Amino acid sequence: MNQVAAGIDIGGTNTAFGLVSESGKVLVKGTQPTRSFPDAKSLVETVSEAIHAQVRELSKTYPGLKLSGAGVGAPNANPYRGTVEYAPNLNWHGIVPLRDLFSAALGVHTELTNDAKAAALGEQFFGAARGCRNFIVITLGTGLGSGIVANGRMIYGHEGFAGELGHVLVERNGRLCGCGRQGCLETYCSATGIVRTYRELKPKAADSVDAKEITRLALEGEPEAMEAYRFTGEMLGYALANFVAVTQPEKIILFGGLVKAGDLLLNPVKQSFELNLLNIYRNKIKIEVSSLHESDAALLGSASLVFNREAAP
Amino acid sequence: MNQVAAGIDIGGTNTAFGLVSESGKVLVKGTQPTRSFPDAKSLVETVSEAIHAQVRELSKTYPGLKLSGAGVGAPNANPYRGTVEYAPNLNWHGIVPLRDLFSAALGVHTELTNDAKAAALGEQFFGAARGCRNFIVITLGTGLGSGIVANGRMIYGHEGFAGELGHVLVERNGRLCGCGRQGCLETYCSATGIVRTYRELKPKAADSVDAKEITRLALEGEPEAMEAYRFTGEMLGYALANFVAVTQPEKIILFGGLVKAGDLLLNPVKQSFELNLLNIYRNKIKIEVSSLHESDAALLGSASLVFNREAAP
Repeated sequence: MNQVAAGIDIGGTNTAFGLVSESGKVLVKGTQPTRSFPDAKSLVETVSEAIHAQVRELSKTYPGLKLSGAGVGAPNANPYRGTVEYAPNLNWHGIVPLRDLFSAALGVHTELTNDAKAAALGEQFFGAARGCRNFIVITLGTGLGSGIVANGRMIYGHEGFAGELGHVLVERNGRLCGCGRQGCLETYCSATGIVRTYRELKPKAADSVDAKEITRLALEGEPEAMEAYRFTGEMLGYALANFVAVTQPEKIILFGGLVKAGDLLLNPVKQSFELNLLNIYRNKIKIEVSSLHESDAALLGSASLVFNREAAP
Repeated sequence: MNQVAAGIDIGGTNTAFGLVSESGKVLVKGTQPTRSFPDAKSLVETVSEAIHAQVRELSKTYPGLKLSGAGVGAPNANPYRGTVEYAPNLNWHGIVPLRDLFSAALGVHTELTNDAKAAALGEQFFGAARGCRNFIVITLGTGLGSGIVANGRMIYGHEGFAGELGHVLVERNGRLCGCGRQGCLETYCSATGIVRTYRELKPKAADSVDAKEITRLALEGEPEAMEAYRFTGEMLGYALANFVAVTQPEKIILFGGLVKAGDLLLNPVKQSFELNLLNIYRNKIKIEVSSLHESDAALLGSASLVFNREAAP
């Protein structure tokens, strides 16, 4: 081995980074708490130093090892401009030229994409979507993110903000969303969405209840938690059936915390999906759960921006 | 001029065909009544003979003129397989290998796409979408068809049936659609949809009333006809706002009979569109009416399959 790429995944809580081989192996990893840095620049400096140290360390095993480039996934990223713009979950302000900051600190070519698209690229080159030219990855985290690939290429859209499937309206006059509108998919199908559903079903639930706890309760058989998953799955299946009419994917891959509930989520998703599909699509489109280790997918996807030119915006 | 392409547009009523120059000029046109032929083969033979005659005639003006290839747009077309499959509006049965039939009868390389995608290709190479890498064309005919281009390429999907935006569900338990489901966009936003809306508003309307008549009445100021257009526009704007969250187009081009109502349709579309858009997309995406002559768009688009390799499936 003589080439590695740095993969960097900026999250609201933690920033993960590591070195990835061209064959998609995460060779070494590290993390930093995103919020403990006063601004983007100081985070970039610390992470870049750590990556340089990782390269030096790995060079002892692989003499002549070279860092080929870096790929960064971040929320509210504009992949065309290489910027993170007004990210509500980061303590950065305005428009941050994140790609150029990393490129300068690391001394290598750097690409930026958004966090959900990084996960989708991870699936495309190293996961469940290998060999697929048309697929959708849905990330069920705090919100609902997505990466849509058509004709083998990620859809970035005119200005880099395609694939905001979490903000597709699925219910008229539905739940109020953080975006100011009502009825967005992510107010139902996400970690925060399932908590809202659960609280509607069980108004006296403890204030501290979160998606992880609801998953635990559902797996133990608590009726309200199981119903919360059933309803979440039904809404997601309905929405996915509509997305199929846009890009006709070969498969849809679900990713993130909620998929840990397994069939409690998957069964109602599949049932509602088939029920709402146009007849020409029925019984043809696979809904699968990501097979990548959760913390690795975004690193692999970010790194794929270095090794695969077709992945880049 | 020494090269032309044949463009062929198979419709439920008429089949239009003609010769198109590489610069997008329709040089000569003809039509045949689709239903007067007992099967696809006899239609193909008559149309192909007429095209050969067109080439011979045009060769008198341009000696050495050569037919480079043919592009065909048809309903229920599978562009990958080159077939028309179970078309409900054609008196053909089962799966028809239309591409191969034309290729054999014309003796040139032939490509097939669906009718709405042909119109979208016409816009891409010769119309309002020239230079756009991300756009959507919506055809408002008997039904609602669409062609979606992302990264400069038409989205055909895994099996060639992407872009069925007429069958996106926009209303739970909404109007019954010919596809068997309820609430499909085309039950509201199409020539047949606006007739249903008008009848709901004016139950005593004559049985013979059609979209053309409603357009005429609306332009004359009849309140029910104007309200039918307002409601149609509102539903369409809502749906378009959701499509933006998928592919983030630079523009959306509306095409077909209903756009002849002008601002009666466009104003409510734009208003509802902006109201329902996620904030990051607002005031950025143009909604335009096609500038191509209606009967030319599909011919130009079909012919573009010959001249532009990136247009082909």
